[in-house]
Amino acid sequence: MESKSIGPVELREAWWLLTQEDRIEGFQLLEADDAEEFFFDLSADDQAELVIHLRPGARRIWLRLLPPDDAADLIQAADEEHRDALLRLLDENTRREVSALLAYEEDEAGGLMSSRFARVRPDMRVDEAISYLRKQALSTHELETIYYVYVLDPHQRLLGIASFRQLFASPGERTIREVMGTDLVTAHEEMDQESLARLFAEHDLLAVPVVDDEGRMKGIVTVDDIVDVVEEEATEDIQKYGGMAALEEPYLRIGLFDLLRKRVGWLAILFVGELFTASALQSFQDQLGALTVLTLFIPLIISSGGNSGSQASTLVIRAMAVGEVRLRDWWRVARRELTSGLVLGGILGLIGVARIELGPVLGLEPSQNLVRFSLTIALSLTGVVLFGTIAGSMLPLLLRRMGLDPASASAPLVATMVDVTGIVIYFTAATLLLF
Amino acid sequence: MESKSIGPVELREAWWLLTQEDRIEGFQLLEADDAEEFFFDLSADDQAELVIHLRPGARRIWLRLLPPDDAADLIQAADEEHRDALLRLLDENTRREVSALLAYEEDEAGGLMSSRFARVRPDMRVDEAISYLRKQALSTHELETIYYVYVLDPHQRLLGIASFRQLFASPGERTIREVMGTDLVTAHEEMDQESLARLFAEHDLLAVPVVDDEGRMKGIVTVDDIVDVVEEEATEDIQKYGGMAALEEPYLRIGLFDLLRKRVGWLAILFVGELFTASALQSFQDQLGALTVLTLFIPLIISSGGNSGSQASTLVIRAMAVGEVRLRDWWRVARRELTSGLVLGGILGLIGVARIELGPVLGLEPSQNLVRFSLTIALSLTGVVLFGTIAGSMLPLLLRRMGLDPASASAPLVATMVDVTGIVIYFTAATLLLF
Repeated sequence: MESKSIGPVELREAWWLLTQEDRIEGFQLLEADDAEEFFFDLSADDQAELVIHLRPGARRIWLRLLPPDDAADLIQAADEEHRDALLRLLDENTRREVSALLAYEEDEAGGLMSSRFARVRPDMRVDEAISYLRKQALSTHELETIYYVYVLDPHQRLLGIASFRQLFASPGERTIREVMGTDLVTAHEEMDQESLARLFAEHDLLAVPVVDDEGRMKGIVTVDDIVDVVEEEATEDIQKYGGMAALEEPYLRIGLFDLLRKRVGWLAILFVGELFTASALQSFQDQLGALTVLTLFIPLIISSGGNSGSQASTLVIRAMAVGEVRLRDWWRVARRELTSGLVLGGILGLIGVARIELGPVLGLEPSQNLVRFSLTIALSLTGVVLFGTIAGSMLPLLLRRMGLDPASASAPLVATMVDVTGIVIYFTAATLLLF
Repeated sequence: MESKSIGPVELREAWWLLTQEDRIEGFQLLEADDAEEFFFDLSADDQAELVIHLRPGARRIWLRLLPPDDAADLIQAADEEHRDALLRLLDENTRREVSALLAYEEDEAGGLMSSRFARVRPDMRVDEAISYLRKQALSTHELETIYYVYVLDPHQRLLGIASFRQLFASPGERTIREVMGTDLVTAHEEMDQESLARLFAEHDLLAVPVVDDEGRMKGIVTVDDIVDVVEEEATEDIQKYGGMAALEEPYLRIGLFDLLRKRVGWLAILFVGELFTASALQSFQDQLGALTVLTLFIPLIISSGGNSGSQASTLVIRAMAVGEVRLRDWWRVARRELTSGLVLGGILGLIGVARIELGPVLGLEPSQNLVRFSLTIALSLTGVVLFGTIAGSMLPLLLRRMGLDPASASAPLVATMVDVTGIVIYFTAATLLLF
């Protein structure tokens, strides 16, 4: 049969295009070794889908192959109704571990950690610790990493850490207490994954121990999980900057209904906000009626404010996310954006004036003073861009100050705010200079 | 003297606020151990600034403390005029290594790698390899990692890899050739750091060997460097999405002139693009003059297209950056966005009609048909939002197809395109339905 020759590479390539039935069939056609590697590389969602549709015997085998943290992810990814049945397939010990992991949120340290770390007593000798690790290394799936050993007291409180490298470089008869490091970087079990990622980045760590309120060690998070976290968090942030809710699933995978649900909320809020532009314009109807040429520059002026505001909010939100800007820096940010707004607005104002002076502006009657009109446009642009940079940079800081997510001050939200204000600035300048 | 009591924590906290002189003074006040840790934790830019302003003796000591890859980063971060002098401070061997590293771009695999990896011959025995590693582990700064050994032939070509864990779990008398893995994941020396990060994420690796065109091994990149890379790349992408050039330096650190330079380019391009809205409006001046109420809804309609376009472009650009969407998926993306545009546009259209039917629209003369006006608004919104989602999602794919950076199709660029088109759609609908 020709389809017998399917390899893991082809299956992975075609995965997204396959129906559920094809996926299961394809998976079952893989050779044992390939199937194992393929299964481990799947996302927790895909693993859950696959396992649920296998025969009961196979289901148990595949589920039991996973280390507890991955098994917990799989069960969390499965539909509510299957979770208990899946949990019952695990052996007693693993079930207890997995149940404990399931109590954590997926995106906090406790939900990312593995409980399979190397524990030693402080009075153990270095050579004893090394041969203990050697034994553990022989049973491949027993430990998440052998590169650190964690020194615990009888109450499971973390006393110190020794890297394998330190053990290896120390005389065998020393005790662990003598060689361990006590300058510990730990994460609380409820630390959110974004802070956790920053911890890894700041300290260049391979693994971080997770502790509870009493300092008892619960598990470790390893750096390979953190690379995924950083990418995932960046994606969520970027989607929020784009003016929508974070999808939490790949774009081509998420159901169309969910995709729309994540997008329509912000779109509707922005739309309602933008309705105020109509009200703002209505209140300047006399000026509009008297001088229709003003209409021509409405989109130009308000969008310039929106663009400069988008830049400023994007810069500040990202700088806050990576820890470069903190609340107490607000005055330094405000000063920078004040200068930026004036300079950038001035430059756009000059380009705008050049356009008016050089190109023909139809509808501007000869009786109107071209110089005053140019001045109106230049002043409005400077004012609108300045308002954009200030609003765009201060809004994220204000949201953080109020305990909200700064990323909600997305470029589209700032643009909408600036649109309404931009109309007021433009027509106020026009009223003062042209009427 | 009281200022003698300054610790590394306080110095780090205050760092950004300090002048160059204060930084150097503060650094010199640290205890030797603290100073060393503090120095290693600094960015390459800060290290360079510090080292250049120390006395020549101290300069040499600090520079020589760094492993070759970090020394290369420091020298790359220093101003052109200092680089040769700094290079001359290194000892012969390190200078050769650092010079080789300096030949690579900072953001490619070769520029991130360390040349201090553990090399073994295939006919070495496992216990020989372990005791070789033990010797290396004793001299702390000799190897970047002891967790993998790399098996090279006499021409330095990579034959296989053994993890320390594998060695440790194997009988001592086996040869390396028997235990090494030959299913290798390698990176070419010119692989860009974004692809490299994806390689780490896909394979959950701690280190990746870097090879040249002939398969000769040049160094290794370790995962702790990759966490920084992922964060850095996300920041650059996010800044491009926000409609500006990537800053490449922290927001509060970059000089004001550079900050403005990175922002003004796109802002001016968008402004010039937006000038076409004035031309578009000008060509509909008859309709505008006859029915000024049309003016009121211009910002509402064009910004709705801009917002839906921002969402679509953000989604697609990010999905392409993390590898979820490829060029050949364009038709699936187009179909999704066609449906999304129709549904989202329809919903906004309904809200718009509700506003017109429920609230008063001043300026709409009783002779005008309210139903036809509502229909104009609803149809325009649907059309504009649909155009936004299609343009926003297809433009990044088109740019990639042409070999350009998809992230250039930023939300502001899409919004500008949609502004001009939105005016045409709106006034075409109005002309057909109201005149």
